[in-house]
Amino acid sequence: MRANGLRLLWAKGGKAVNGWCAIPAPFAAEVMAHQGWDSLVVDMQHGVVGYESAVAMLQAISTTDTVPLVRVPWLEPGIVMKMLDAGAMGIVCPMVNTADEAKRFAGYCRYPPQGVRSFGPIRATLYAGADYPEHANAEVLALAMIETEEALSNLEAILDVDGLDGVYIGPADLAASLGAKPGFDPTDGRVLEAIGRIVQAAKERGRFACVHTGSPDFAKRMFKDGFDLATISSDARCMAAKAQEILGEMKAVDETDDPGLPSSVPEEGDGY
Amino acid sequence: MRANGLRLLWAKGGKAVNGWCAIPAPFAAEVMAHQGWDSLVVDMQHGVVGYESAVAMLQAISTTDTVPLVRVPWLEPGIVMKMLDAGAMGIVCPMVNTADEAKRFAGYCRYPPQGVRSFGPIRATLYAGADYPEHANAEVLALAMIETEEALSNLEAILDVDGLDGVYIGPADLAASLGAKPGFDPTDGRVLEAIGRIVQAAKERGRFACVHTGSPDFAKRMFKDGFDLATISSDARCMAAKAQEILGEMKAVDETDDPGLPSSVPEEGDGY
Amino acid sequence: MRANGLRLLWAKGGKAVNGWCAIPAPFAAEVMAHQGWDSLVVDMQHGVVGYESAVAMLQAISTTDTVPLVRVPWLEPGIVMKMLDAGAMGIVCPMVNTADEAKRFAGYCRYPPQGVRSFGPIRATLYAGADYPEHANAEVLALAMIETEEALSNLEAILDVDGLDGVYIGPADLAASLGAKPGFDPTDGRVLEAIGRIVQAAKERGRFACVHTGSPDFAKRMFKDGFDLATISSDARCMAAKAQEILGEMKAVDETDDPGLPSSVPEEGDGY
Amino acid sequence: MRANGLRLLWAKGGKAVNGWCAIPAPFAAEVMAHQGWDSLVVDMQHGVVGYESAVAMLQAISTTDTVPLVRVPWLEPGIVMKMLDAGAMGIVCPMVNTADEAKRFAGYCRYPPQGVRSFGPIRATLYAGADYPEHANAEVLALAMIETEEALSNLEAILDVDGLDGVYIGPADLAASLGAKPGFDPTDGRVLEAIGRIVQAAKERGRFACVHTGSPDFAKRMFKDGFDLATISSDARCMAAKAQEILGEMKAVDETDDPGLPSSVPEEGDGY
Amino acid sequence: MRANGLRLLWAKGGKAVNGWCAIPAPFAAEVMAHQGWDSLVVDMQHGVVGYESAVAMLQAISTTDTVPLVRVPWLEPGIVMKMLDAGAMGIVCPMVNTADEAKRFAGYCRYPPQGVRSFGPIRATLYAGADYPEHANAEVLALAMIETEEALSNLEAILDVDGLDGVYIGPADLAASLGAKPGFDPTDGRVLEAIGRIVQAAKERGRFACVHTGSPDFAKRMFKDGFDLATISSDARCMAAKAQEILGEMKAVDETDDPGLPSSVPEEGDGY
Amino acid sequence: MRANGLRLLWAKGGKAVNGWCAIPAPFAAEVMAHQGWDSLVVDMQHGVVGYESAVAMLQAISTTDTVPLVRVPWLEPGIVMKMLDAGAMGIVCPMVNTADEAKRFAGYCRYPPQGVRSFGPIRATLYAGADYPEHANAEVLALAMIETEEALSNLEAILDVDGLDGVYIGPADLAASLGAKPGFDPTDGRVLEAIGRIVQAAKERGRFACVHTGSPDFAKRMFKDGFDLATISSDARCMAAKAQEILGEMKAVDETDDPGLPSSVPEEGDGY
Repeated sequence: MRANGLRLLWAKGGKAVNGWCAIPAPFAAEVMAHQGWDSLVVDMQHGVVGYESAVAMLQAISTTDTVPLVRVPWLEPGIVMKMLDAGAMGIVCPMVNTADEAKRFAGYCRYPPQGVRSFGPIRATLYAGADYPEHANAEVLALAMIETEEALSNLEAILDVDGLDGVYIGPADLAASLGAKPGFDPTDGRVLEAIGRIVQAAKERGRFACVHTGSPDFAKRMFKDGFDLATISSDARCMAAKAQEILGEMKAVDETDDPGLPSSVPEEGDGY
Repeated sequence: MRANGLRLLWAKGGKAVNGWCAIPAPFAAEVMAHQGWDSLVVDMQHGVVGYESAVAMLQAISTTDTVPLVRVPWLEPGIVMKMLDAGAMGIVCPMVNTADEAKRFAGYCRYPPQGVRSFGPIRATLYAGADYPEHANAEVLALAMIETEEALSNLEAILDVDGLDGVYIGPADLAASLGAKPGFDPTDGRVLEAIGRIVQAAKERGRFACVHTGSPDFAKRMFKDGFDLATISSDARCMAAKAQEILGEMKAVDETDDPGLPSSVPEEGDGY
Repeated sequence: MRANGLRLLWAKGGKAVNGWCAIPAPFAAEVMAHQGWDSLVVDMQHGVVGYESAVAMLQAISTTDTVPLVRVPWLEPGIVMKMLDAGAMGIVCPMVNTADEAKRFAGYCRYPPQGVRSFGPIRATLYAGADYPEHANAEVLALAMIETEEALSNLEAILDVDGLDGVYIGPADLAASLGAKPGFDPTDGRVLEAIGRIVQAAKERGRFACVHTGSPDFAKRMFKDGFDLATISSDARCMAAKAQEILGEMKAVDETDDPGLPSSVPEEGDGY
Repeated sequence: MRANGLRLLWAKGGKAVNGWCAIPAPFAAEVMAHQGWDSLVVDMQHGVVGYESAVAMLQAISTTDTVPLVRVPWLEPGIVMKMLDAGAMGIVCPMVNTADEAKRFAGYCRYPPQGVRSFGPIRATLYAGADYPEHANAEVLALAMIETEEALSNLEAILDVDGLDGVYIGPADLAASLGAKPGFDPTDGRVLEAIGRIVQAAKERGRFACVHTGSPDFAKRMFKDGFDLATISSDARCMAAKAQEILGEMKAVDETDDPGLPSSVPEEGDGY
Repeated sequence: MRANGLRLLWAKGGKAVNGWCAIPAPFAAEVMAHQGWDSLVVDMQHGVVGYESAVAMLQAISTTDTVPLVRVPWLEPGIVMKMLDAGAMGIVCPMVNTADEAKRFAGYCRYPPQGVRSFGPIRATLYAGADYPEHANAEVLALAMIETEEALSNLEAILDVDGLDGVYIGPADLAASLGAKPGFDPTDGRVLEAIGRIVQAAKERGRFACVHTGSPDFAKRMFKDGFDLATISSDARCMAAKAQEILGEMKAVDETDDPGLPSSVPEEGDGY
Repeated sequence: MRANGLRLLWAKGGKAVNGWCAIPAPFAAEVMAHQGWDSLVVDMQHGVVGYESAVAMLQAISTTDTVPLVRVPWLEPGIVMKMLDAGAMGIVCPMVNTADEAKRFAGYCRYPPQGVRSFGPIRATLYAGADYPEHANAEVLALAMIETEEALSNLEAILDVDGLDGVYIGPADLAASLGAKPGFDPTDGRVLEAIGRIVQAAKERGRFACVHTGSPDFAKRMFKDGFDLATISSDARCMAAKAQEILGEMKAVDETDDPGLPSSVPEEGDGY
């Protein structure tokens, strides 16, 4: 079976820079896959991505060595198993708040006797090889999102769940749950403390620690704090950010020496 | 009928900053439409965009005031008319090399007696209003791409074609045709001279002059040279460029002080 | 944030005429959105609409001021949150039978601390503005369908659930549950009595009352009885009804004075 | 091979009431196919229908006995042949203005030696039977649209083209070409005279005469004038018309006795 | 209402050969439907099939008399009811392990008072007739998959559930659960014994017994053992198997007398 | 740039076994790509494949080393160039009947100065590398279909066209054009003679000779006759053929010893 590139990287002590795909277009995913991310998450929760687009995006990513992961919309067995069958090498599951939820999630990702995953790896064997069934339990990653106060209060019990490979922090939801303003790269002490507590507890138990960030600066800081994987921005955010830079440059000209130039560049972004 | 925003802008002496959509996803187009571009071209020629995606992208753009344009794959009446019916406020047509081709193109864009456009503006009336049929000939833009040596040799005849609103320069094809290396923001003297000749001839005849660029710097230069519209980059290029910046920042760290960091960032891009 | 047009209308004492979209085509939704409905429900339960079509339909509706709503297939957190992220200004949830279900439903629709909605309003900020996160809890509508005997028996408890904005009656399911023949515009006393009881209880508690109908006559009657919103027919039913009128007119001719005319017009409809 | 139902109907002296599909959704086409139209045209010219939707719509129509036809975007061999391969029992081709164009069109619809159609009826044999190749030339209908002054001036030559089965009048384009206002059910004398001339010339030469109309009244009049097939309205127009009726009824109430009712119903339609 | 062909066949003492659709393409489903299978399952669990493809595949199958069934991804009410509304004449539900799960499943498939299915058979009435609502409870098949040790331990209780029509054995999952190697056409004694036990218990209680197989030989054996329906292979497996035969023949040539022939034929398949 | 695997194979004196994709599903294409074909043609002419499916299929094929080719619907510049931009390593063009057509076709496939291909290899650089523009003219294959009597009469002139890499024989069309029954693996002397003449003329001029076949036997014979590439069957035909084998086996049982078995297996296929 094709080895999971993230496990290989981590085994060598490396750290993974993860990209994020929210645009439902295999072409966009293929462009992202060629940029050099260690792994890419196809986001079926907050991304605008349905099932068949997600599969096509996994195919597009599979034209490269970038490791394909999927964030499912919710902890539901149907979609977790469908995305593994489709060749995802790991699942990020949102809102895992209790040990029982973590157990159910890990179980959906493993064939018996370790779990209850149903057998039918229709595209996974194409992607990873005919011996996928024998090795999938050991290669596929089950990453539980820790992003609520409830999850924090169950942190150790969640991390102790057998078959769970690691945790993935969603700082925006975590902040909202802790009463802070949701957003990336938090500065609120409560959120930062929680993040610190999570990575420490994960590392103590040999679990992988992953985190969502909005900038290389915060990602580097997270790596220094012990995280194994940091997501930075997303396909849509990259696109919008660069477009804002371009339009900002054109507007600067507008205001100083060319009164006819475009007046429609938004002052502070318009909501995206 | 809803007025064509580009004509309004130009009537006030303004210049248009145009964005470019090559990703076949209405969500990506909607994000682009919210960034502040004066207009957006849905690219059905070199973009990865088929007919039904193009319509959905026009719908997504129509949630804003950004002017929706379409580049068709080739000078073919079927697709020119389908995209106008779908609500494009202007058509960019590639490879218009002769006055006859310009005439056919302009004719496809106009209802009789000015042209031969077939009647059935099924979505255009939704977008632009019930009186679209009466005003479409005056509002819709027909922009012919000048991008070959042959077109240069027929430049004046093309520009004189009745019903043609302007020209759009494709510098990459123009360079290739002139024996230079294809690319944006040319430095080859032959290409620059040709661009200068085109904008001058267009302005002399009261035609709009548009140009494709790869950077704000070149776009500003083109505005100074008299162009009315400059396209800068594209959705996919913006996305890839920002991703490269992020990965470049992460890699810099990698090489200096954190040997475990990702090794898969490409040295010089990998072809996109 | 863009205000919820239904809340504005209701605040002025108005009543909403709601349209219904069951055809999975953004063009059809855009045509519907231009007809003058106050709001439109994209029906993901009994409509033939999957996730990505639903998003494209929301985009099409967003080209107008019609308020976009979604009926989800079932009370499941993943899809409720995905549709809110996609810009739905309200969710209609089928088969809410207990206070606990109503509580879960309301919670899925609200960010903490009022609920458990996960943060990532990827298209909602495009549609409603950058300050959507601050105002969404107050603008988004959570409408629970009351359509079973069990729901009736829990009516007051359901209506008292914090964060639930109103109820939506599905007369067909309600009739079936009460032992009557399912259908719109019921005449069975048990169903009419139940409808009366629901609207009264809702109004007493300051909840919005909405109802599905098959005709303007019944909708007007419901308005008189205190309902705030009435859905009338659907895209597919409108299409079929008008087609039946046309074919009926043509068939009448057939039978009287033109024996060669079409013989395939169905006598009494064929099941749709 | 499955016989062409229109030929059967016409052989018995019948007249065909044809429906029209402009919404790119197989479900909408299936609903239309169940209403009782003798035949349905999937409109790839002014309808919002691309290739793969068209095929899915043909499949949906094939669940009934309604005869499936296609209007192609333009006289181009690729798409004419693709739609025949996909199981269309007839092609309506827009803007056939000369005998040469009619000849090319007829040739695209026929296998050698009668024409140049390429062999590969991949779905047509599923729909019509394994012996489709032997009978297709005799069953498939080639219907040329007569809709310009030029076509009128070449009328007899067009009608005399071997292999052309009939003509189809597009009154809107015909009106525009003759200097009248485009629209259905024309009252302008020039257009009516042209229509009369076309049907007479067609009947004299044993060609089928078909016409697009906007109402049963005009369709009946056309039948009386000798036409063999009349199209009435379309899926999208039926939907919008019935929605307008509903909203009109609700608005009437609004103005007389219930001031809170919806104010957003458009006075005279809004452009569709 | 159109009768369920499987019930008719079984009532005559017949046995059903069932085909399997995992490729998300209505054309592929239509080809399969023309081959002569008694019924076809559209597989939304391990097949690469999302909701809208599944509906289009049901439409494609509906062009023939082949009975359309669906396997849902998991025991979830939303998707079970959506697929029945879309015209599936039976649902195969994976991983039914307890009587309670069987009860919930059967309930999702039946209108009140037998179950809790919500009313809105939008495409089912097109497919099966206007009187579908009255007869659906008696015609639609609810088939629960027995594929775990837990299910075996609850076998009789599951089979006794009112409204459950039969069981469907997934030998691969059953094998995995029993500690054997997953796969079709098992030889492990534990699996064979379990299969025997299931069919016997089902027959004793008058339930239909169905089984997934990989070959006609095993299917025949299962028929002899009392099964009412056997699935053999799938669309994708048929395609791959025949391709392997072709490439195997070409490779044989390669090795013996034509050294230039293709060298890329895989020795033992590559994982699919 | 990634070298064209067919050119490499041919340079070593090898012969290519080509597969064929007519099912519009990237998953089906990915399964085909894993079987061991040297190359795969995505068929946009007689296959049920539109533009965006074709791109997704190219992506799916790109997960393997199988060489991706495309057959375009017709000799039209727009689609030829779009498919090259999408990463096709060769184009098969139907119905090339004259040297002028061959010249136009070859020109569409080459950048200036060899041809008129427009510059914008948006996905081709992802697939083949950043230096694709410099090498594409030398790597991409332009294969003209010889399939009419007219083409035969212009055979030498077509083969002499600069930039044309080879010819591809469509035996069904060729047979029809020569007055024989269309089909694969012809036995008619006129067709066989024409095939012989084509391969001889091609080989004399150093052009590649390719041919469509229906069986390994005929393919082997063609290889012996000098052909460089033989297509055998297709995805849909493989699927149907294997299904027929399975159903045939089941039916044989039916007739001899198990009267209850399925009666719906077609006697001689039903038209596909």
